[in-house]
Amino acid sequence: MNVHMALRRIIVSEVHEHQLVELREVDGPRRFTIVIGFFEATSIDRRVRKQVSERPLTHDLVAGVIEELGGELRDILISDLRDGIYFAKLRVMVDGEIREIDCRPSDAIAVAVTADVPIYVSDEVLDEVANE
Amino acid sequence: MNVHMALRRIIVSEVHEHQLVELREVDGPRRFTIVIGFFEATSIDRRVRKQVSERPLTHDLVAGVIEELGGELRDILISDLRDGIYFAKLRVMVDGEIREIDCRPSDAIAVAVTADVPIYVSDEVLDEVANE
Repeated sequence: MNVHMALRRIIVSEVHEHQLVELREVDGPRRFTIVIGFFEATSIDRRVRKQVSERPLTHDLVAGVIEELGGELRDILISDLRDGIYFAKLRVMVDGEIREIDCRPSDAIAVAVTADVPIYVSDEVLDEVANE
Repeated sequence: MNVHMALRRIIVSEVHEHQLVELREVDGPRRFTIVIGFFEATSIDRRVRKQVSERPLTHDLVAGVIEELGGELRDILISDLRDGIYFAKLRVMVDGEIREIDCRPSDAIAVAVTADVPIYVSDEVLDEVANE
């Protein structure tokens, strides 16, 4: 089963190369942290802060392409953790079926925040990494 | 008419916030420079250098979404220049017709280099900004 998560906080550091995003369970106490890049962290952060750009930024473009090609982003799923690397999917409804598009969790979260869709994580991943 | 351009060079500076990408006419002498962000510049640069990432980066994701939703990226077009801001479009064939997706030229060029499709600029823009 997949577990509904919320973005708890983003820690953006100008000093360190790697940034942190923390997700917490919506209906429970579990949470975990993912290390992401600076660009992706600032992209998520500006969306959470509702900073509007006049021109579409790169994650706006991802959402724009989905919409223009007739898809509907339903949610994003952090599906796997292998060798310390998280794998995620954009889950897009198109022609009545769900297509899963492989991506990094940082891009998936940035697109989820842009399009205001839920963030899920698989039970297997959460069982492996969650703190309470 | 739209003019076929080639990426002539990218100037990535760790010191300055704004980076430069220079395009030149494929069948002529005209060229011009666009100021872009650091993230987009490094994204273009790593693609030109054929640096492969194990996981899809953000511009790979844009290309991945187009493909997964049944589109075919034909080319990108830098179409307009208004108040010093360049406007671009991804031109995607889907269901037998071309859809034009609004974006910044930096994202458009990064996606063009990723998907290996031509870069065009409109005559009007080139007439306004080109040097020989």
